[in-house]
Amino acid sequence: MNISMYQASAPRFANTLKNLSAILDKAEAYAQMRKIDPLVLTSARLYPDMFALARQVQIATDHAKGSLARLAGVEPPKYEDTETTFDELEARIQKTLAYVKTFKPEQIDGTEGKEIVLTFGTQKFPFNGQTYLIQFALPNFYFHTSMAYAILRHNGVEIGKRDFMGGV
Amino acid sequence: MNISMYQASAPRFANTLKNLSAILDKAEAYAQMRKIDPLVLTSARLYPDMFALARQVQIATDHAKGSLARLAGVEPPKYEDTETTFDELEARIQKTLAYVKTFKPEQIDGTEGKEIVLTFGTQKFPFNGQTYLIQFALPNFYFHTSMAYAILRHNGVEIGKRDFMGGV
Repeated sequence: MNISMYQASAPRFANTLKNLSAILDKAEAYAQMRKIDPLVLTSARLYPDMFALARQVQIATDHAKGSLARLAGVEPPKYEDTETTFDELEARIQKTLAYVKTFKPEQIDGTEGKEIVLTFGTQKFPFNGQTYLIQFALPNFYFHTSMAYAILRHNGVEIGKRDFMGGV
Repeated sequence: MNISMYQASAPRFANTLKNLSAILDKAEAYAQMRKIDPLVLTSARLYPDMFALARQVQIATDHAKGSLARLAGVEPPKYEDTETTFDELEARIQKTLAYVKTFKPEQIDGTEGKEIVLTFGTQKFPFNGQTYLIQFALPNFYFHTSMAYAILRHNGVEIGKRDFMGGV
């Protein structure tokens, strides 16, 4: 039986993005209640040279759309990375969720052995579909969604791990 | 072919714990260089009611040892959760790594359908091996290792995502 590539990817991205969307809703409500400029939160970071909240959300969604597209062998949609407001970030999450949902198991299952080479600068990182998904795409995705959570937690938004995990 | 339960678990825990260990080494060196009491870092948190660094490391290691043990149907070792220093946290990571390495693929592969029920208070969460690993254990593990990273990043330790990912 084993784990299917589809089960290990699309539903996980979808579930965590939904949770991220709910976390951003809480952050927006918190800004409103405390009369904080929402842009203070979307541009917040944990250290001066770290990516801000908005960028963390952009990168997390990029990993979701990019990895499914790479595995399926299709071109992912390009996003402009111009989001600064909560509404814009929510829209980005929603369009990523809609894109994730277009993938059918038969497009992703069976891609374990597919050659996927990532290039950063002059360095090439060769993966197969399985190592790409479980060693690169998922840890990156969880890292950036966790950073978004951490930035908001640090700024006083009342969220707990249950918000990140979605009920468990 | 599909992804094996073993490949999706033990090597991922091991790799990320090794990276976490290297991150703690950098944090300890940073404390020494800047003449910061190391306990300030191991007890640091992003918000007053959030778990401190040491607790994040404890929980991350618990998810690694606990999930492999549950999948394999063995009793995990009990740790006392008394670590406060970098040396003690490193020792905890190293003993968890050694435990993770005791598992053989044949103990974990084939556990996709195994019934695993988690109980929190009066609530029961039924999983099978696959959903337990990919929906619960791995996201939790990445969440707490990311929180450890975030706490240290926030405190000025010079680390980047490459430290978390281990070279990619």
